[in-house]
Amino acid sequence: MKISIINGPNLNLLGRREPEKYGSLMFEDYLERLRTRFPGIEFSYFQSNIEGEIIDEIQEKGFSADGIIINAGGYTHTSVAIADAITSVDAPAVEVHITNIGTREVFRHTSLVARSCKGSLIGLGLDGYRLAVEALIEIKANRK
Amino acid sequence: MKISIINGPNLNLLGRREPEKYGSLMFEDYLERLRTRFPGIEFSYFQSNIEGEIIDEIQEKGFSADGIIINAGGYTHTSVAIADAITSVDAPAVEVHITNIGTREVFRHTSLVARSCKGSLIGLGLDGYRLAVEALIEIKANRK
Amino acid sequence: MKISIINGPNLNLLGRREPEKYGSLMFEDYLERLRTRFPGIEFSYFQSNIEGEIIDEIQEKGFSADGIIINAGGYTHTSVAIADAITSVDAPAVEVHITNIGTREVFRHTSLVARSCKGSLIGLGLDGYRLAVEALIEIKANRK
Amino acid sequence: MKISIINGPNLNLLGRREPEKYGSLMFEDYLERLRTRFPGIEFSYFQSNIEGEIIDEIQEKGFSADGIIINAGGYTHTSVAIADAITSVDAPAVEVHITNIGTREVFRHTSLVARSCKGSLIGLGLDGYRLAVEALIEIKANRK
Amino acid sequence: MKISIINGPNLNLLGRREPEKYGSLMFEDYLERLRTRFPGIEFSYFQSNIEGEIIDEIQEKGFSADGIIINAGGYTHTSVAIADAITSVDAPAVEVHITNIGTREVFRHTSLVARSCKGSLIGLGLDGYRLAVEALIEIKANRK
Amino acid sequence: MKISIINGPNLNLLGRREPEKYGSLMFEDYLERLRTRFPGIEFSYFQSNIEGEIIDEIQEKGFSADGIIINAGGYTHTSVAIADAITSVDAPAVEVHITNIGTREVFRHTSLVARSCKGSLIGLGLDGYRLAVEALIEIKANRK
Amino acid sequence: MKISIINGPNLNLLGRREPEKYGSLMFEDYLERLRTRFPGIEFSYFQSNIEGEIIDEIQEKGFSADGIIINAGGYTHTSVAIADAITSVDAPAVEVHITNIGTREVFRHTSLVARSCKGSLIGLGLDGYRLAVEALIEIKANRK
Amino acid sequence: MKISIINGPNLNLLGRREPEKYGSLMFEDYLERLRTRFPGIEFSYFQSNIEGEIIDEIQEKGFSADGIIINAGGYTHTSVAIADAITSVDAPAVEVHITNIGTREVFRHTSLVARSCKGSLIGLGLDGYRLAVEALIEIKANRK
Amino acid sequence: MKISIINGPNLNLLGRREPEKYGSLMFEDYLERLRTRFPGIEFSYFQSNIEGEIIDEIQEKGFSADGIIINAGGYTHTSVAIADAITSVDAPAVEVHITNIGTREVFRHTSLVARSCKGSLIGLGLDGYRLAVEALIEIKANRK
Amino acid sequence: MKISIINGPNLNLLGRREPEKYGSLMFEDYLERLRTRFPGIEFSYFQSNIEGEIIDEIQEKGFSADGIIINAGGYTHTSVAIADAITSVDAPAVEVHITNIGTREVFRHTSLVARSCKGSLIGLGLDGYRLAVEALIEIKANRK
Amino acid sequence: MKISIINGPNLNLLGRREPEKYGSLMFEDYLERLRTRFPGIEFSYFQSNIEGEIIDEIQEKGFSADGIIINAGGYTHTSVAIADAITSVDAPAVEVHITNIGTREVFRHTSLVARSCKGSLIGLGLDGYRLAVEALIEIKANRK
Amino acid sequence: MKISIINGPNLNLLGRREPEKYGSLMFEDYLERLRTRFPGIEFSYFQSNIEGEIIDEIQEKGFSADGIIINAGGYTHTSVAIADAITSVDAPAVEVHITNIGTREVFRHTSLVARSCKGSLIGLGLDGYRLAVEALIEIKANRK
Repeated sequence: MKISIINGPNLNLLGRREPEKYGSLMFEDYLERLRTRFPGIEFSYFQSNIEGEIIDEIQEKGFSADGIIINAGGYTHTSVAIADAITSVDAPAVEVHITNIGTREVFRHTSLVARSCKGSLIGLGLDGYRLAVEALIEIKANRK
Repeated sequence: MKISIINGPNLNLLGRREPEKYGSLMFEDYLERLRTRFPGIEFSYFQSNIEGEIIDEIQEKGFSADGIIINAGGYTHTSVAIADAITSVDAPAVEVHITNIGTREVFRHTSLVARSCKGSLIGLGLDGYRLAVEALIEIKANRK
Repeated sequence: MKISIINGPNLNLLGRREPEKYGSLMFEDYLERLRTRFPGIEFSYFQSNIEGEIIDEIQEKGFSADGIIINAGGYTHTSVAIADAITSVDAPAVEVHITNIGTREVFRHTSLVARSCKGSLIGLGLDGYRLAVEALIEIKANRK
Repeated sequence: MKISIINGPNLNLLGRREPEKYGSLMFEDYLERLRTRFPGIEFSYFQSNIEGEIIDEIQEKGFSADGIIINAGGYTHTSVAIADAITSVDAPAVEVHITNIGTREVFRHTSLVARSCKGSLIGLGLDGYRLAVEALIEIKANRK
Repeated sequence: MKISIINGPNLNLLGRREPEKYGSLMFEDYLERLRTRFPGIEFSYFQSNIEGEIIDEIQEKGFSADGIIINAGGYTHTSVAIADAITSVDAPAVEVHITNIGTREVFRHTSLVARSCKGSLIGLGLDGYRLAVEALIEIKANRK
Repeated sequence: MKISIINGPNLNLLGRREPEKYGSLMFEDYLERLRTRFPGIEFSYFQSNIEGEIIDEIQEKGFSADGIIINAGGYTHTSVAIADAITSVDAPAVEVHITNIGTREVFRHTSLVARSCKGSLIGLGLDGYRLAVEALIEIKANRK
Repeated sequence: MKISIINGPNLNLLGRREPEKYGSLMFEDYLERLRTRFPGIEFSYFQSNIEGEIIDEIQEKGFSADGIIINAGGYTHTSVAIADAITSVDAPAVEVHITNIGTREVFRHTSLVARSCKGSLIGLGLDGYRLAVEALIEIKANRK
Repeated sequence: MKISIINGPNLNLLGRREPEKYGSLMFEDYLERLRTRFPGIEFSYFQSNIEGEIIDEIQEKGFSADGIIINAGGYTHTSVAIADAITSVDAPAVEVHITNIGTREVFRHTSLVARSCKGSLIGLGLDGYRLAVEALIEIKANRK
Repeated sequence: MKISIINGPNLNLLGRREPEKYGSLMFEDYLERLRTRFPGIEFSYFQSNIEGEIIDEIQEKGFSADGIIINAGGYTHTSVAIADAITSVDAPAVEVHITNIGTREVFRHTSLVARSCKGSLIGLGLDGYRLAVEALIEIKANRK
Repeated sequence: MKISIINGPNLNLLGRREPEKYGSLMFEDYLERLRTRFPGIEFSYFQSNIEGEIIDEIQEKGFSADGIIINAGGYTHTSVAIADAITSVDAPAVEVHITNIGTREVFRHTSLVARSCKGSLIGLGLDGYRLAVEALIEIKANRK
Repeated sequence: MKISIINGPNLNLLGRREPEKYGSLMFEDYLERLRTRFPGIEFSYFQSNIEGEIIDEIQEKGFSADGIIINAGGYTHTSVAIADAITSVDAPAVEVHITNIGTREVFRHTSLVARSCKGSLIGLGLDGYRLAVEALIEIKANRK
Repeated sequence: MKISIINGPNLNLLGRREPEKYGSLMFEDYLERLRTRFPGIEFSYFQSNIEGEIIDEIQEKGFSADGIIINAGGYTHTSVAIADAITSVDAPAVEVHITNIGTREVFRHTSLVARSCKGSLIGLGLDGYRLAVEALIEIKANRK
């Protein structure tokens, strides 16, 4: 099973940026844990601060992966184009947010990306990525 | 470990109500599966169509349980009082929605309950309850 | 033919509450007239000030009655949960409002309940209930 | 007893226009049924696509008829002038809508016309006109 | 000097319609007084309930009259087309409203027509028409 | 003189819930102080988390008590039905809020209940209940 | 007959401020013309940039003058207090605006002051003051 | 092939009205050019300032023409009824606007009519009508 | 104990202005009663129609008085500056409104001043000032 | 004559993405047809998912091409920067949308890009590009 | 070169009011530093809590000074009249805010005053005044 | 001292794009002047039309520079991601806008970027960059 993890802007600073809000673990280290935990899954990982490169990645992985885990960061709330890309591809997508965006600024309450996803996991820290993997496994099982 | 699952209005009709949207499994049957899957966890289950009874239950379980899983159904979008109840108790709560509320009517896009919860799992079907259990296990582990 | 009439909050005060607005007849007395007028119809009547009990009643009658007449009173404008209950059951529902809510306060202009009903009868006084009965007879006739 | 039925724009296409939404009966044929059902009532019927002609008709019939049944069609949502006309005349008016406008586009949710009417009958198909006749009979009886 | 007075929907009912709000004088009688008071002015008068006929009249008079006095009635608040017509012609227009629309329903607070006029006279009863005549005399004097 | 005190959802947790915001005194203890301070007044006390039971209580006490003191908690901002109940009964009502709701979340800024009350006492802590008693004494004195 | 003219902020700059918008005549000079034209009327004139001094003047003149002409300038759109003052006194008030505020910035479209006045004269230049005098003469005549 | 061109209010003034915005060519002259350019197409042309007559025309041509080109002028932004008429007939419609309405007043930014049309051509001057003809030819070709 | 009472615009007309809404007692007379009732308290009283003078008074008394009672009248709803002044000084402030502003015009529903105060007493007539004194006594007692 | 066609995000998936909405033809194939149809025009073609690269291209072609045809895809509704780029260059631009965005989600109803363009062609499928070419030919002819 | 510094309400409390937000330096002391730093500039300084006195000062200095530095404090967000005064005079004005108003309450996000100024300096503490002086020197140099 | 200047989309066209609005100086030439004026400061300069590259640059310079001067151009009003990047790094940022965005289109009135900056300098032309340098020098001095 192939899962593509795609992180948006500023998530390359994880572990360094506002650690009281986002934790002190770098995503690459967390990713190692994920790979250890799910040895049967082939993970690809992509991070970019550029909206269009995220779209490129969705298009590239979206016709071959079994699932996409996307945290579009600050583009979550404004990007019609990322949402359109997810709708355009075959792989089911699950949205993850590390913090509970519903308790932050008003402009973070709306997710345009969520509309194109199967579901969302919000506010559960990095653990949200693990749960997203489990959700995609279940989604794949039900599709068969 | 004790987890309290609280379902709101019309969720007693699961398996019977709009099965193309909510699935054809009754929640009680699903609960059995959960209990089988997590033998070390003591689950309590409560469903009510009455907003205030949901608050009563949150207050009753919220000081002794290790976590609350709440799907407030139609009260999700309007109940300040349920949100206040969750804030008032000790147990961390996780919100579950079976369907992707972001793709339904506009009045379902806002969750007042989410503000009081640690996180939300949306659109993942009944599997969202399982993932919520896993999330609470992780939350408890991190708290120690 | 079985018709379930369900009245919401404060409608138990009919005849006593603001009679210049709602008239001076108690609903129970009016109900007798309805029964006299429609001897072939078996009416059940339920009133509650509790939103969730209204939902309970909709669920209980909604799979066996031939029609529901609902006046959700003050819950009309705020209850997603009552609307969901009506959508969840089989019986067609017709909404009644005694006064013309469109000429009252702004927060009474929106009816969440109407979305789940076949139709609405507004501003016609208690006579709206009789007309709702006639509407349900017609709806049943057309369904056959 | 004299009742004036006034239909607004595009209702001359009834039976021909989107029959899955509005039914396949022409209004003239339905009117015959009404006349048969209420032999003691003198019906006048007027249809126009022109907002101002509807106002003319309201003014002409509104001081002599015992009641007006109005379905202002697309003007329902925008016409201050038709609403003013109804307020200006003596005859009580009842608004009819064939479909449940509350479940259609947002711009159909507001009725300016309803404010000037005694009441509204919405979503009950052509049968709404019959019920409106019955409502007007009752209104007249109560006025005496 | 030629002045064209154009009244919109329901103003033909002046004297008859809600006299406590609009007074008990018919406009035709008032017009006689105006003609007596301003013997040097040639008045034309037009009333229609039809939005498009008001536009026709504005187009017909608007290239030859020295001024237009318009009370668009209920179309004041919704008619882009009447406003466009006034902008399209040469004659300066002055808007009159008999009642103080700012103290009535919210949908009467906005005047689309006012944008195309030189000015507005609001809430001064029928006397607003006399003052509008005086305003147009002054406007013409200043133009020379 | 008879005064009915009615507290809404989560106020049964007073002294226990967020004491930095609501204080550490239980309402029952505070009530004893009130009874001591106003020996000539017969107090009834009712608390419920259920919106409809609050309505039941308003209806039961509202025709015999000399005044109602209501703190509808989280229902303050959403309950048309509680407001309707207050309007429907004879006793004058005074609204109390322990905290200054104007400095909290936006959804707490609007009080539907206030519209039906004589007045409101906001942000004065539990002392607001004592002042409400004094206000009702004055209201009764002025009514005689 | 006594008429009090009250001008608000920046109107002391008339003739000097943006003459292409407001004309090149100083108000004092215009006032002389008014006095010449209406010899039987005793005019008082007051201008202040201070909102509260305008209120003082309304209170001082408002119980003895036969009418008030007010151009509240920039306070028109924001001053609840000036509107309250006008409502509090006996003299009828008429609002004047030199320019057509409906074609300027959005925040100039609303007049809080208009609600408390008999009527408004907008966009007619300084001539609006003369017409306001005429309107007040008529209002006084009708009151007798 | 038969194409019906329908122009709304004030478009009869083309060539005369604000030529810097709408050009100096009368529509009738432009129509001649169209006929010359598309000799194989039978054009009908209708212009009215009356909303309801435009609806009449849509209904009359809409079941026999191969396409409708509509420029509803000022009714574009407010007419639910014209939009309903287009939806009710068989012929595909294409909307034309001479100016770029997106750069004009806010109330011109919304087109209710566009929703019922196949497409829109905006801001391309009279040439928009020619392109609309070409679009309809293509639409017809694709339908076969 | 020193308490500063500050009244805003038009409150100098109390007893004279709309007595059916505000009562027929002048504030100065009421103040005498307050002084009699609370002999141990030193009251200062200030009224001004000028927003900035109210700010001056808050600044002057706010560092020495034990409490401020403020009724900012029409400035309540618009004055950021008065609210800032209250925040800037040491004395706790309590807001009073004689009428129930929640049942009046929409622009009276928001209080900017309330945000800076400890609490608000609304709709209790002049008695609200007495209760405010009592509230301040309690606040002072709790602070010690 | 040189025309630059610029397509935004996800338009590289044309023919593959939601073919029931966007058709099954790849844009490159369509472009060949355009080149065949307009042999005298030199077309450049650019597609990118990256907003800033679209701006780069507009800047590069915008000072030498005779016209730009832009379909900004999902950036249409949110990109101030693309609109600014079009305004900054010399070449006239025409906006194309394949589907009728007015009948899709609300966030697709606003086009920021349209404000900077000469005109828009919406809902006409790929044929909109051909018509845009024709429009630009006409625009160039009129400019000479 | 003459520069007029005008400070609005509560800025006389600088150094005393919320020092953690506004600093602990009194403005008079800061002004001395400015005078020392810019010996060639003649500064006038004015502070008032009264909106109209600020307008008076703008009018008095605005025709002779080379520049105005204005911090309208709480009036920034509500005063049309101060903005009008700035527009009415000759001197260029620059707006200063000590704190970053964009990160404070929503009602502080809008500046009506900014529209009439050349520019704004926000969030830079008292140093904003120095930079404003430098900006005005540059503006004057460019005007020559 | 190291300062990083970052310019957003279309600012590479400075001197060429709408010179009446933005001036005729290229930014590179202006930068030379800055370097001459502040010889002790090491400037880096970056311009990109790509939102994500701006974020990359903020991340790269934001942990080593003493200050950032950012003009995000059209991304100012829509980019949550750029604002997040500024918040994530150590260097204090100051926002510059060449024109007074408060007097331009409504969508330019909001700055998401401002929330993350120390302050903003708006409407002062290119001189705003110089003042921003001075502001950063002061900020650095105060931090020591």
